[in-house]
Amino acid sequence: MPAGASLENLCVVLVATRNPLNIGAAARAMSNFGCFSLRLVNPYEVAFREARSAVGARNVLERATEHKTLSEAIAGCTLVVGTTALGHRELQHPLKRLEYGGRLIKRHLETGPVALLFGSEKFGLSNEEMSYCHWLMRIPARREHESMNLGQAVAVSLYELVRDSRAVSKAPKPVTLASAGEMDRVTDELMKLLQESGYVHGRTASSSTQKIRRLIRRMGLSARDAEVWLGMIRQIAWKLHTRE
Amino acid sequence: MPAGASLENLCVVLVATRNPLNIGAAARAMSNFGCFSLRLVNPYEVAFREARSAVGARNVLERATEHKTLSEAIAGCTLVVGTTALGHRELQHPLKRLEYGGRLIKRHLETGPVALLFGSEKFGLSNEEMSYCHWLMRIPARREHESMNLGQAVAVSLYELVRDSRAVSKAPKPVTLASAGEMDRVTDELMKLLQESGYVHGRTASSSTQKIRRLIRRMGLSARDAEVWLGMIRQIAWKLHTRE
Repeated sequence: MPAGASLENLCVVLVATRNPLNIGAAARAMSNFGCFSLRLVNPYEVAFREARSAVGARNVLERATEHKTLSEAIAGCTLVVGTTALGHRELQHPLKRLEYGGRLIKRHLETGPVALLFGSEKFGLSNEEMSYCHWLMRIPARREHESMNLGQAVAVSLYELVRDSRAVSKAPKPVTLASAGEMDRVTDELMKLLQESGYVHGRTASSSTQKIRRLIRRMGLSARDAEVWLGMIRQIAWKLHTRE
Repeated sequence: MPAGASLENLCVVLVATRNPLNIGAAARAMSNFGCFSLRLVNPYEVAFREARSAVGARNVLERATEHKTLSEAIAGCTLVVGTTALGHRELQHPLKRLEYGGRLIKRHLETGPVALLFGSEKFGLSNEEMSYCHWLMRIPARREHESMNLGQAVAVSLYELVRDSRAVSKAPKPVTLASAGEMDRVTDELMKLLQESGYVHGRTASSSTQKIRRLIRRMGLSARDAEVWLGMIRQIAWKLHTRE
């Protein structure tokens, strides 16, 4: 499976967006995920003006372009994908889930510019607007509540594109585990402490040692944490001695 | 790889959230992705009250609970995961990328309740709050702009959990492609039209037919679209005849 894509060739197209907060949020997610081309088709005048001050999105908003028509906004793109919730409309278009559609977009981004369209908050993309798309894509939300907030839909879509599926099976660098010897030292010190404090009695000491040995192994101790435990146990034992 | 998880066992814990819009946005994303347990630790009083009216999130917000301490909010959970941007702090915790951490969470959700923590908008989770976590998780945003909007971070994290990796390789049901015979009918009708309109001349007709035949095949026509093309070509041909 492909790795996360560079979003250099991607442009996000917001059609008829009403809420400046949503334009700002979309721009912020774009900046988070490394997509810098934002195109606004017929945004409400006020919305665009107010959005320009959105937190942490200036680099995207300053470069954003405004377009009178969708056709003009996507003219340079060789793949145009519309996002939609299923809703109750009968779609005239092939509809792909984000997991699958994202893969097709990633492939295409290597060869040419892709436009990803998001419709207005209230109505989504119209049939007229969808007719400019090669295909449609949906985020796999619950059928009972499928309509997502615009900024969140942009964030989730872009995340799918930068998501590195190889990272799934790549565990982070493991910590150095405690060696058997280190664990035995902890076991010994703890046993001594437990005997002195009366938790373990002479006649059951042998089976107790086995229990404690297994207990310490189940902790999955790192070498560093084994040191910390040793220190704590020794300090407690010292305090116990000085009290006697 | 695991399929999308049911988020029944997941609770989202927002710590010291300031902005009611963010609480509302988090709740909406939760409803979108089927997670209904929201816990708020020390939210600003006003924030929680105002958030209750957030669009499309009432089902989550009505059940949301408020807690004085983080410890209380996560008491029933057997896995506690904190979200964080790398920032400039040195983390004392194992940090996993969302793609990998998400897989661990999915597995755990099958056996017990998991808490997913999000810190305040301005400071994220404090070291004190992180110390309650088994490990930390980061969304793979750009290092240069890693801090995400709270509602978007919740949406992206939950999407990773419901994401069905099997859907990646599962193409949608294919359309019925046009058969060779149907494509030949389109080729024949188009050739006739091109000859009559003078685009193709008698002496080059044979090589032209081959060109057109290949052109039609490159269209990847569905059976339905082949019918549409036949209808259009025949209508144009008819109009041409009646003009002569």
